[in-house]
Amino acid sequence: MARPIRVGISHGDINGVGYEVILKALADETMTELCTPVIFGYHSVAEKARRRFGLDDMRLYKAGNASQAAAGRINVVDVSSSAPEILPGEPTEESGKSAVAALEMSAEALEAGDIDVLVTAPISKEAVQSETFRYPGHTEYLEARIGHGAKSRMILFNDSVRVALVTTHLPISKVAAAITRENVEAAIISLSDSLKKDYAVPRPCIGVLSLNPHAGDGGLLGTEEKDIIMPAIEACREKGILSFGPFAADGFFGMGDYRHFDGIVAMYHDQGLAPFKTIAGESGVNFTAGLPYVRTSPDHGTAFGIAWKDQADPTSMREAIYAAIDIFRNRIRFEEASSDPLKKYVTERPERGDRPDRQPKKEKAEKPLSEEENLNEQTAE
Amino acid sequence: MARPIRVGISHGDINGVGYEVILKALADETMTELCTPVIFGYHSVAEKARRRFGLDDMRLYKAGNASQAAAGRINVVDVSSSAPEILPGEPTEESGKSAVAALEMSAEALEAGDIDVLVTAPISKEAVQSETFRYPGHTEYLEARIGHGAKSRMILFNDSVRVALVTTHLPISKVAAAITRENVEAAIISLSDSLKKDYAVPRPCIGVLSLNPHAGDGGLLGTEEKDIIMPAIEACREKGILSFGPFAADGFFGMGDYRHFDGIVAMYHDQGLAPFKTIAGESGVNFTAGLPYVRTSPDHGTAFGIAWKDQADPTSMREAIYAAIDIFRNRIRFEEASSDPLKKYVTERPERGDRPDRQPKKEKAEKPLSEEENLNEQTAE
Repeated sequence: MARPIRVGISHGDINGVGYEVILKALADETMTELCTPVIFGYHSVAEKARRRFGLDDMRLYKAGNASQAAAGRINVVDVSSSAPEILPGEPTEESGKSAVAALEMSAEALEAGDIDVLVTAPISKEAVQSETFRYPGHTEYLEARIGHGAKSRMILFNDSVRVALVTTHLPISKVAAAITRENVEAAIISLSDSLKKDYAVPRPCIGVLSLNPHAGDGGLLGTEEKDIIMPAIEACREKGILSFGPFAADGFFGMGDYRHFDGIVAMYHDQGLAPFKTIAGESGVNFTAGLPYVRTSPDHGTAFGIAWKDQADPTSMREAIYAAIDIFRNRIRFEEASSDPLKKYVTERPERGDRPDRQPKKEKAEKPLSEEENLNEQTAE
Repeated sequence: MARPIRVGISHGDINGVGYEVILKALADETMTELCTPVIFGYHSVAEKARRRFGLDDMRLYKAGNASQAAAGRINVVDVSSSAPEILPGEPTEESGKSAVAALEMSAEALEAGDIDVLVTAPISKEAVQSETFRYPGHTEYLEARIGHGAKSRMILFNDSVRVALVTTHLPISKVAAAITRENVEAAIISLSDSLKKDYAVPRPCIGVLSLNPHAGDGGLLGTEEKDIIMPAIEACREKGILSFGPFAADGFFGMGDYRHFDGIVAMYHDQGLAPFKTIAGESGVNFTAGLPYVRTSPDHGTAFGIAWKDQADPTSMREAIYAAIDIFRNRIRFEEASSDPLKKYVTERPERGDRPDRQPKKEKAEKPLSEEENLNEQTAE
């Protein structure tokens, strides 16, 4: 087996549930066989968390920097010389600063090749704001810092559903104006690209939601469907992307129609995320598609209300780590397949079978299906 | 036992799934013991549907009008002298007209006391529009026709969750402007009133969603939470209504927080209905609260794509019929309790136990709890 993938994990806000979910997610011994975790945070805080959460068998190794991280170990790299005081549930200027320091160090490590992928624990969006850090969240920061001009796209997913958003962190009063044909097309295209490259879906089928209730009810409840979303879908189909819609969000999720699609484009935050989280429960993962590096995160926040109380569920963090590894491998396979002048058909069993708690899935052949074949497959589901 | 409750059922659009879900919902013999169904539609179309859907044991009785409906039978009242041609999946001017005729006749029957409650099968909102019918849907029509000045409030519910909306059939571009303190307060109050009167919840606890993503993120993503929704919640609490929030919709549904509340107020259609339908699946019911008469409907549409194909699921229609009966009975008990000058404690077992597929629930006493008691109850859930 090749060198294990090195997974950088930024600690987030130390006064939230970050350390708890990180360490609990890494508690399974097989995790250090599957990957080399490198936590960017504080060894001293991690030690406190290890004891607090009863992880008696866990050993944490202090690495001088990311390049010194050792395989088979849980490595912790200190992001500054001394850790701030832990104040459970209270975001502070200090906790914000150390969250930013961990992000900075993670970004450097990605660029230097010292880590392969990044998983971020949740930050307080208010605490991180400063003269030098003016981003609404991880995604915007990473796009600016390591995007090299690429546009990022937030994708929320679990085993059964993947949702991309046209608009993300916007007040509702500004959503309609941001739904332009260009933005809708860009969302469909970037989701389609990511499904191929990151999720190994050879010919993705995408369902697009409407902006307005009842898909605009033939124009009675808004005209964006006719004027913007349908032309965008049409343009994407002309580019060869199997995209359909616009679908009214309530029926689309309520009747289970979402199951027929490899990915879903929602127009705004709550439209996509409220049903997504209802479906995904604790298993949802946030992936920043479109960037040169793989970054995932759990789909929950700092959860200050239960911080350091041994009540946090590490499932989403664990899934985020597994997902980062899966996506990293899928990208390598995709690039190998794309770069070979004679088309390569990948037939070997996927390495995700390494993952102890997941049976290998029945793999689809990488051979792209014809449009008709794939359409029929969708209809039959 | 008292005279069975007479349940009027309007047939909706004959080219949709209306007849299929109505007849399948009524197929259980015990239904005519529980209530007296009166279908407003066409006996000839109902007969075709009965044969098409293999309901060989079902007998349909043609009643001259609603007042002639007989207990123990499935009654059908013709809404006009001849039925339009059935064109499965195609809403037509004719199907729209006959949908309106059924509604008109149902409204008359309610006012005349010939039926006790109304359950409506889905209509095509486009097909029903005419010179004389200019309503976006059932709710608006019924409010105008039989509301006697009362304001209606759409409540979507199943056994585990009840959602009311501040705004309903509005384009997203107009939602933010319609979120006023007055409208939010009115929604909380009308939901609270309905929970007491229609759902027999003595002291309802209500969760209010935010308008913007992340509940506005402290103002970064919108100020309506601070300026409008929080003051509205505060004003309701001063009126003695246990209302809490505003909560970010994605986490509220994703983390299961909605389970702690007797009712939820959502700011707009998809925010409430997409997660609601994801949770409720086929069991969701739409109830028009606030009107002098009880009206429910299944929470799905005409489903033209599967019309007359024997593929429709009658669960939501069946639940809508049961719900109309439950609410009618709850209202009677509430009025009896309220009108008695010496406070009456209802102790007898609820009649919903008649319903063959549902065990009677453990009843709460009608005695109102003190604020502290009820708060603790909620916290403990």
